[in-house]
Amino acid sequence: MRLLFVGDVVGRPGRHMVESYLPKLKRRLRPQVTIVNGENAASGKGITEKIYKNFLGNGAQVITLGNHAWGRNEIFSFINEEPNLIRPLNYPPGAPGKGQVSVNVNGQEFVVINALGRTFLDDVDCPFQALDKAVDQARERTPFVFVDFHGEATSEKQAMGWFLDGRASAVIGTHTHVQTADERILQNGTAYLTDVGMTGPYDGILGVEKEAVIEKFRTSLPAKFEVANGRSQLNGVFLELDHRTGKALKIHRIMINDDHPYYE
Amino acid sequence: MRLLFVGDVVGRPGRHMVESYLPKLKRRLRPQVTIVNGENAASGKGITEKIYKNFLGNGAQVITLGNHAWGRNEIFSFINEEPNLIRPLNYPPGAPGKGQVSVNVNGQEFVVINALGRTFLDDVDCPFQALDKAVDQARERTPFVFVDFHGEATSEKQAMGWFLDGRASAVIGTHTHVQTADERILQNGTAYLTDVGMTGPYDGILGVEKEAVIEKFRTSLPAKFEVANGRSQLNGVFLELDHRTGKALKIHRIMINDDHPYYE
Amino acid sequence: MRLLFVGDVVGRPGRHMVESYLPKLKRRLRPQVTIVNGENAASGKGITEKIYKNFLGNGAQVITLGNHAWGRNEIFSFINEEPNLIRPLNYPPGAPGKGQVSVNVNGQEFVVINALGRTFLDDVDCPFQALDKAVDQARERTPFVFVDFHGEATSEKQAMGWFLDGRASAVIGTHTHVQTADERILQNGTAYLTDVGMTGPYDGILGVEKEAVIEKFRTSLPAKFEVANGRSQLNGVFLELDHRTGKALKIHRIMINDDHPYYE
Amino acid sequence: MRLLFVGDVVGRPGRHMVESYLPKLKRRLRPQVTIVNGENAASGKGITEKIYKNFLGNGAQVITLGNHAWGRNEIFSFINEEPNLIRPLNYPPGAPGKGQVSVNVNGQEFVVINALGRTFLDDVDCPFQALDKAVDQARERTPFVFVDFHGEATSEKQAMGWFLDGRASAVIGTHTHVQTADERILQNGTAYLTDVGMTGPYDGILGVEKEAVIEKFRTSLPAKFEVANGRSQLNGVFLELDHRTGKALKIHRIMINDDHPYYE
Ligand SMILES: [Fe+2]
Ligand SMILES: [Fe+2]
Ligand SMILES: [Fe+2]
Ligand SMILES: [Fe+2]
Ligand SMILES: [Fe+2]
Ligand SMILES: [Fe+2]
Ligand SMILES: [Fe+2]
Ligand SMILES: [Fe+2]
Repeated sequence: MRLLFVGDVVGRPGRHMVESYLPKLKRRLRPQVTIVNGENAASGKGITEKIYKNFLGNGAQVITLGNHAWGRNEIFSFINEEPNLIRPLNYPPGAPGKGQVSVNVNGQEFVVINALGRTFLDDVDCPFQALDKAVDQARERTPFVFVDFHGEATSEKQAMGWFLDGRASAVIGTHTHVQTADERILQNGTAYLTDVGMTGPYDGILGVEKEAVIEKFRTSLPAKFEVANGRSQLNGVFLELDHRTGKALKIHRIMINDDHPYYE
Repeated sequence: MRLLFVGDVVGRPGRHMVESYLPKLKRRLRPQVTIVNGENAASGKGITEKIYKNFLGNGAQVITLGNHAWGRNEIFSFINEEPNLIRPLNYPPGAPGKGQVSVNVNGQEFVVINALGRTFLDDVDCPFQALDKAVDQARERTPFVFVDFHGEATSEKQAMGWFLDGRASAVIGTHTHVQTADERILQNGTAYLTDVGMTGPYDGILGVEKEAVIEKFRTSLPAKFEVANGRSQLNGVFLELDHRTGKALKIHRIMINDDHPYYE
Repeated sequence: MRLLFVGDVVGRPGRHMVESYLPKLKRRLRPQVTIVNGENAASGKGITEKIYKNFLGNGAQVITLGNHAWGRNEIFSFINEEPNLIRPLNYPPGAPGKGQVSVNVNGQEFVVINALGRTFLDDVDCPFQALDKAVDQARERTPFVFVDFHGEATSEKQAMGWFLDGRASAVIGTHTHVQTADERILQNGTAYLTDVGMTGPYDGILGVEKEAVIEKFRTSLPAKFEVANGRSQLNGVFLELDHRTGKALKIHRIMINDDHPYYE
Repeated sequence: MRLLFVGDVVGRPGRHMVESYLPKLKRRLRPQVTIVNGENAASGKGITEKIYKNFLGNGAQVITLGNHAWGRNEIFSFINEEPNLIRPLNYPPGAPGKGQVSVNVNGQEFVVINALGRTFLDDVDCPFQALDKAVDQARERTPFVFVDFHGEATSEKQAMGWFLDGRASAVIGTHTHVQTADERILQNGTAYLTDVGMTGPYDGILGVEKEAVIEKFRTSLPAKFEVANGRSQLNGVFLELDHRTGKALKIHRIMINDDHPYYE
C-alpha cells in the first residue's frame, strides 16, 4: 500500500505547485492514497470549497486541516457536506465537520485521522486521549491508519509517534512549515516524521512575505502578513505499508524546490 | 574555510557519540573550526567544567549553549574563566559569561555568536537587536561570522536567517533537538538550517526517556525526566565558506544513527 | 447557608494565619461550610498529610488544590484516602484523587468542586466541559454548589462565572494570589469573585521572597524561590446563600493584614 | 499633590462613563493630574485622534496605552504629534510615539510613564531595564513619577512595584480589566495596585459581549468579539502624594457601577 502526503499548501503559490507536481508525483510513485494538508490553501489561512474541489481534481483523496481550519468563514457552509475533508479530531464535541475519514482502497478500508497538538497551540481536547481511542477503534476494522498530527512542539510530536507506535501505520507531523530530516520507522512499525514541511513560497518565512515577518519580530508592531511571491517549493512524504499488517516498510521525504529540482 | 557544528549534546549518550565520532568526522572533513552545542551535556541540562574540557579534548574549539546554559550551578564558577564557552548573547546586561568569541584560523579571525530566541521561550533581550549589532560589529573586522541561533519557533529562526542573510556566514538553529531538512544557502550567501538536531539517545523524546514524556503529556502530572538509554545518534552540519568573502559555498547535514550508519 | 473560603495558603506564614484567624473568623461569621485552598501550603508548593489534617483541625471541612496539587510527592500516598481533599476535576481520567466532594450541612448536601483553567496554565481537560457536566449533575441533587476555579486569566475566570451563572451558588477564583475587588452577585444568582487572593507573606511577591523574583525577571537566570519572611496576611471570602434556592444573597471579601487589621 | 487615574476605557460604554463621571470625580477630588488609559477606547482596541481629544476635553491631561496601542491604524498618523499621548516605553527603539511625558503642575514637573509587561504578553524590551533607567532619570529632575504598568501576570506586576518602591511615586497596573483589592503604600513610599480595572461594560467579559467569549472558550472556534451593551462601570484610583518628597500618602480605589453607585 503506497501513500503520498503533501504538507501544508500555502496560498496560490502552493496550489500551483500541487497542480504542477501532484500529477507527476502520482504517475511516478503510484500511491493508492493521496492526502493533502490544506489548512493554509486560501491566501495563507483556511480553505474554500473551490480549492478543496480543485485538490480532489488534482488527484488528492483526502484533505486534512489544522489550527487554521476555520481561517475562512466559508468553511462552515461546506465542511459538513464534504466527505473527504477532515479537521482535527480533538476539537471539542459539537465542532463542525469530522476528524477522520475512511477511504476504500481496492476493498480495503484506509483510515485518515487529523489531530491538533496543544503545546504552544490552541486549547483543544487532549490529542493523546482522542487518538488513543480513535486509532484503536479504527484498528478493529483495518490495519491501515494514517495520522496527520498538526503540532508545534517537537516533544509533543515525537511523544505522539512513540505513543502510537505499532498502532498507526504512520504519524506524520504538520504545522511548522519546515520539513524535518528525522523520517524513520519506529520500533513497532509506525512510520514517523516530525514535520513534512510546507508547499508554497520558497523565499518567504513559513510562506509569508519575509519583510513583514522580520519587522514584526523587530518592532512588535502590527504587521500585515501576505503570502510571499517568487519561487515555490513542494514538501511531502511517500510511504509504503505492508499490505497485510499495515506496518510501514518505507518512508521517503519529498522536497521539490530550486535547490532540489524535480527530474522526471 | 571549513566548519563543523554538532547539535545539542544530551547527557552521557551524547558525550559518547562526540568522543566516538568527532575525531572521525574531523579526520574526514578537516574543519578548521569545530563547534559543539553543549547546553544539555550534563545529564540533559547544563554543562560542567569537566565536560566542557572533554569537548575541547575531543577536538571542539568553541562550545555554545542555550536556554539550559544555567542548568548546572557549577557553570557560574567557571564560565567567566573559560575563553571558548559562550552563552546566548542576549541575556540581559550583567549575566555571567559572554555571547561571542573569536577564534584564530591561520591568522584570520573567526567569530562565533550564540543567541536565544524568545517565541515560546524565555524573556530575554531582543535577539534581532542583539545580533544586528553584534554581527555588524564583527563584520567590521572579519567576514567570518557563525551564529548558533537557539530557538523554538520555525518562524523566528527563518526570520533570523533572512535578517542576517549576507551579513553572517551561517545562521544555524539549535534547541528543538530535531534536525530539519531545509539546509540551503540564502540569496545573499548565508548558510541556513532551521535546526541542526541533537546528539544523544536515538530512541527517546528529544533525548529524554520516552515513557515519562508520554505520561506527562497524557496526565499533566509531575514526571521525572531522565536521559534515555539505548542507541544513540549524532546530528551536525558541515559548512564550507569562501576564504575571502566568508559567504557560504556549501552546507551539508550530518546524521549518524542506526538508520544512517557512518561509513569511514 | 453561610460559607467561608480562604485563598491559597502559602507556606508556614500562611498556615500560621489560618491557625490564628480561622477560629476567630468562624466564631464571628459562623459559616456552616469552611473551605481552604491549600495548593501552596507546604513550603509554597503542594500539601502534606499533616498540613491537610491541621487545616481540618483548624476548622476547615474541605481543602481544595490547584496546579500545584502535586507539588509534594507525598500527595500520591494519601489523596485517595482523604475524603475532603479535592484536586482540579479536569485532570485527565486516571489522575489520583477526585475533583469534588459533598459535605453534609444539617442534612443538606453541599457540593464543592475544584477546577483548573487552561489559559496561560497547564494542558488539562476543558474546564468548561467538565464543570458544565459536574455542576448540572450536582444540581440534580442539591442547589448548593461551590466552585473554586483556579485560573490565571481574568477572561477565562469571568467567562466561567457567567457560564455557570444561575447554576452554581458561587464561582470563586484562586491562583493569582492577588485578591480582586470585583465581588458581585451575577444576574442569575451566582456569587462571583475573580480571585480570592492569598494567605501568607504580606511583603513578598505572591508569597515568595521578593529579591529572588525580581532578580529572575531582571536576569532570566535561575533563581531559588523561598517563601518570604516577615508580616503575613489572610485573604478570603464570605458567602451567604439562600437556604432553599442556593442562590447567593451576599458576598463579602475578607482581607487581614497590617493595612487592614482584624478587630474582634 | 493629588492624582486621578482611570483604568482601560473600553469602547463607547467606557467613553460615556468618562464623559459622565470624570467631571464629577474631578470636582470632588480636585486632582492636579488626571490620567486615563485609553488602549481599548476605540471599539475595544486602540484609540482614534477624536477620542484622544475628547478625553482631554473631559479633563484628562495624559492618555496612556498598552498592548492594544496600535489597535487602530489611525494611531500612526497622530501619535507623534500629540504631546500627551504615551505608549509603552519598552517598545523597541524606532517605535512611533514616546513612552513618557512631563506635565507641569504649578511649576512642578510631573512625569508619567507607561510600560508593558512581558509575561503572557508581547515580546518587547525588558520593562525592568527600561523603567529602572527612565525612573532614575526622571527622579534627577523631580520626585513625582507615576508608572502605568500594563501587564498580565500578578507576579510581574508585584515585582515591578517592589522594584520601583521608593523611586516611583506610584506603580499602578492596567490590562487585566479587573480591579484588584491590594492597594497599599509599599515600605519605601510607593503607592501600588496590581490592577486598576476597566471602564466600560459591566455585564461583559473584560468589556466584551459575553456569549462570544464563552463560545470561544468552549469551542476553540473563531469568534467575533464586540464591545458589550448594557450597564457600565468606571474603575480608577486616586492618589495623594507628598508635595516635597513625591512619596504616596494615600491610595484609594474608585469603583462606580450598579453595585457601587456614585453618590455626589
Ligand atoms: Fe500550516
Ligand atoms: Fe498550522
Ligand atoms: Fe537543547
Ligand atoms: Fe534548548
Ligand atoms: Fe496558589
Ligand atoms: Fe496555582
Ligand atoms: Fe486593556
Ligand atoms: Fe491590554
